[in-house]
Amino acid sequence: MTAPIYIALIHYPVRNKEGKIVTTSVTNFDLHDLARTARTYGIPRHFIVTPNPSQQDMARYIKNYWIEGKGAAHNPDRRLAFEGQEITATIEECRLTIQKLHGNSPRLVATTAQLTNKSTDFKDLKGWIQKTDKPFLILFGTGWGLEEAVLNGADFVLAPICGPSDYNHLPVRAAVAIVLDRLLGQPS
Amino acid sequence: MTAPIYIALIHYPVRNKEGKIVTTSVTNFDLHDLARTARTYGIPRHFIVTPNPSQQDMARYIKNYWIEGKGAAHNPDRRLAFEGQEITATIEECRLTIQKLHGNSPRLVATTAQLTNKSTDFKDLKGWIQKTDKPFLILFGTGWGLEEAVLNGADFVLAPICGPSDYNHLPVRAAVAIVLDRLLGQPS
Repeated sequence: MTAPIYIALIHYPVRNKEGKIVTTSVTNFDLHDLARTARTYGIPRHFIVTPNPSQQDMARYIKNYWIEGKGAAHNPDRRLAFEGQEITATIEECRLTIQKLHGNSPRLVATTAQLTNKSTDFKDLKGWIQKTDKPFLILFGTGWGLEEAVLNGADFVLAPICGPSDYNHLPVRAAVAIVLDRLLGQPS
Repeated sequence: MTAPIYIALIHYPVRNKEGKIVTTSVTNFDLHDLARTARTYGIPRHFIVTPNPSQQDMARYIKNYWIEGKGAAHNPDRRLAFEGQEITATIEECRLTIQKLHGNSPRLVATTAQLTNKSTDFKDLKGWIQKTDKPFLILFGTGWGLEEAVLNGADFVLAPICGPSDYNHLPVRAAVAIVLDRLLGQPS
């Protein structure tokens, strides 16, 4: 038994460098990297979350290029990856989609580069994931990270990823890869 | 005791989709992501390898923007990351640089998405790294991966990264993050 894991890349509400709550721009590389990494780790669906309609349109245009357009013929592997991508306006919309699929609302897992007083260790979360068939939704913030209200509203806040240095400015694309590998990877 | 680990992103010799040996283009996102991930995991220096002089110039221009140009003032964290980046023409040049720094030629570790008959497990490589102070250089191929001659000439070929699916088309940016986390990460 292993829980179905969903992931979402959040463009709002996140902080910018000055600490203001903003909507960040969708980045083409994020769409590709999330799709490929999610597919590798068997994530059934991954969400690109932005409330901005023209940003949603751009993300859908890119997805369709790789699923139905010239990209699908040029690179079928990329099509497989993009098939799992869904563009939504809010975290709540992701939650409702998962609830419809499973009959249970997902447990929300927020991620952050900071240690918080409710941080959950990777090995604890991995243990819980392996003991249930109820879904989890892991949220990754773009920009300077998820707004505090998202962290406070989550069921779990995952411990920050630490290397041997005190530098904690990983690209979100790398954070997604490392988190999925720690939770679902099968290192030989 | 832990060995100094260096990494290199190889743009030649690599395979393209048709299996031909080519020089791939340098990608701006790779430069940023490698710099940030390498800095997080305490990699003292990371190499961008391309024999193409105009591609080398472009990579140096981007690096300098973040180290000395407007980027350094805009984002000092990015400066710290790019300080570890060195643009070289060949893998041999990386080897000689490391040899000069340490007095020992590095052991070469090639990576590939395929299982080979000389694949080394992650846990074995991690064990060896922790038992020596001699340097290692880990090579990551762009495009469709490192040419076979590089795999054959390496001291080790690291086992492919496997998730629970059979999809093995991770972005090289994600592969770098996962490999460094498996070898040097400190999961809580």
